[in-house]
Amino acid sequence: MHIDTDRVRFFCEKLFQAYGFSIDESKIITDVLIRADLYGIESHGIHRLGRYHDEITSGQVDVCAKTEIVNETAISACMEANKAMGQLVGVQAMKLAIEKAQKSGCGMITVRNSNHYGIAGFYTEMAAAEDLLGICMTNTEAICVPTFGSQAMTGTNALALAMPADPFVFAYDASTTVVPRGKLEVYKKNGQPLPDLWALDKDGKPCTDAAIVIENIINKSGGGIAPLGGAGILHGGHKGYGLSVIVDLFSAVLSGGLTSNYVNRKPDHTGICHYFMAIDYGIFGDKTSIRANMSKFLQEIRDSKKAEGQSRIYTHGEKETELKAQRENGQIPVNEKTLQEMKALADKLGVEFNL
Amino acid sequence: MHIDTDRVRFFCEKLFQAYGFSIDESKIITDVLIRADLYGIESHGIHRLGRYHDEITSGQVDVCAKTEIVNETAISACMEANKAMGQLVGVQAMKLAIEKAQKSGCGMITVRNSNHYGIAGFYTEMAAAEDLLGICMTNTEAICVPTFGSQAMTGTNALALAMPADPFVFAYDASTTVVPRGKLEVYKKNGQPLPDLWALDKDGKPCTDAAIVIENIINKSGGGIAPLGGAGILHGGHKGYGLSVIVDLFSAVLSGGLTSNYVNRKPDHTGICHYFMAIDYGIFGDKTSIRANMSKFLQEIRDSKKAEGQSRIYTHGEKETELKAQRENGQIPVNEKTLQEMKALADKLGVEFNL
Repeated sequence: MHIDTDRVRFFCEKLFQAYGFSIDESKIITDVLIRADLYGIESHGIHRLGRYHDEITSGQVDVCAKTEIVNETAISACMEANKAMGQLVGVQAMKLAIEKAQKSGCGMITVRNSNHYGIAGFYTEMAAAEDLLGICMTNTEAICVPTFGSQAMTGTNALALAMPADPFVFAYDASTTVVPRGKLEVYKKNGQPLPDLWALDKDGKPCTDAAIVIENIINKSGGGIAPLGGAGILHGGHKGYGLSVIVDLFSAVLSGGLTSNYVNRKPDHTGICHYFMAIDYGIFGDKTSIRANMSKFLQEIRDSKKAEGQSRIYTHGEKETELKAQRENGQIPVNEKTLQEMKALADKLGVEFNL
Repeated sequence: MHIDTDRVRFFCEKLFQAYGFSIDESKIITDVLIRADLYGIESHGIHRLGRYHDEITSGQVDVCAKTEIVNETAISACMEANKAMGQLVGVQAMKLAIEKAQKSGCGMITVRNSNHYGIAGFYTEMAAAEDLLGICMTNTEAICVPTFGSQAMTGTNALALAMPADPFVFAYDASTTVVPRGKLEVYKKNGQPLPDLWALDKDGKPCTDAAIVIENIINKSGGGIAPLGGAGILHGGHKGYGLSVIVDLFSAVLSGGLTSNYVNRKPDHTGICHYFMAIDYGIFGDKTSIRANMSKFLQEIRDSKKAEGQSRIYTHGEKETELKAQRENGQIPVNEKTLQEMKALADKLGVEFNL
């Protein structure tokens, strides 16, 4: 089922206003959510409205929270988010990083005690839109098992980077796990066995039964998802494990917040931490020629020889840019279950539902 | 065979002096080389003397080169390395990054037209030794095939990060390929088939014959190594591919140098590019508590539940720290072939050989 993007947007804005967010705040949250659907990252779009509802009504998200800057220099700040809505925190923190980059060459903002903020790529592209290089990281509840371990200690811990280029931005946005949890749910739904190195049971042994792994994750009884590179060291799982620790370092350790293994352990407090960085790449040389070099390199990759049976090599952000162009003034796909959830939320909050 | 570390060090210093490097320069190059052997990363230690010999005598490395700063701000610089020896460039650039971090909170140095610089971890640990967070990246000759491609476009493109912690530094240092080329050579030597997703033949199809892949790499006839995550997208190979592009962005694009697909294409010019960053993490908060939080998180990971059959979870840098402590005032392993190569170099250059 497809629905006009504008109508979904209008509905979400009204919904967030019903929770007590201002009109401007509701527009920001909606923007971040809808961007995920425009990009085809359904797991982080309106599909997630139900979870946000639970977080807002349980007090994990404080609708009235104001963020505070607890440490600041010309190139950096540490932000205490006071349980504010993640999307509002993200936009505010990246704006500050951008201002600092424009004045001082770079801006690095660490954030503690925030909440889930949607797709990391939204924030890095704010920087790219100002012709800056943007970086963004976030920790999450622990779901990733370190190499040789049986207990999740780091989160999906996404890392995003956007660099201006023509005809479109290089936009990397990926978890440091081999797959996100949503992928396991798809395999469970289809009754398919998981590929060998994706997940571990509660004893830390490779496990191909998605239902068991998900149940263990929900009950926090051990096991979880392997880091990028898979379980064990043969395919470089120790590298993905290290990258996930690096994301926790920048987001949680440098902000004085909770590392993934403590995130979401209290009923009214997720404690999620983020990191935002913007770099005015003109500090290294002429911006026009650096941007042209990036564009040339990406084009050379896209033009390079294809594998047998493949017609196209994508650079990061290419698919999303194409999909957004189609959907932005058109329609986004909404599945029946999400639509029902949206209707139920509308009823609960007394928001008009005409999707 | 094992040889006293001090004797190997003495020999290397004399050898580099024979090429025309000053006593101080020879000590620096030797330090970087021997550190790799102390850490057990034999591929980047004295095993590589033969290749350095070829690069120095062919003019790829200019023994007399002086580096120049072409752009500079309080937090950044772009360095033209003028074909200097990579280790000398690396130490100089990281020193500059450290000075900037100590004065201005962070220092980012991009470097172009350098040469192979040994292990990236040497430079990040220079930053950690000053109680700073250190980051280092380097591109190399293209060997990594992008997802859906059949032609190598990025290098092994290592990424290293060191963060001060107790009782030892968190020291990540890894290629963004699933394995480095040296791993393929070990499989070839042993006549073992490669794991399924490591390498691609010249048509971009998965290939388990190490000899074929290596021959294709040497002849530049196509194929190469898969990015971290492996060939295809099932296990996240597109993530590793993106990370390798990011390393080329920071090292080559931001410095105005050669991206991996142009490195080592001229007989007397490798054109390798690097990136160095140091951050005074005190810009985000109290250093003592940030360092303590990092140490606590790492200890929690090491103490977390082990997989069945495993007795230990390592954090990055742990194995290397242990090995270095054993070997530093003791002996390092040297294989017969490397020893013969060293003897041949000694003969050519008139350096006394008594290992």
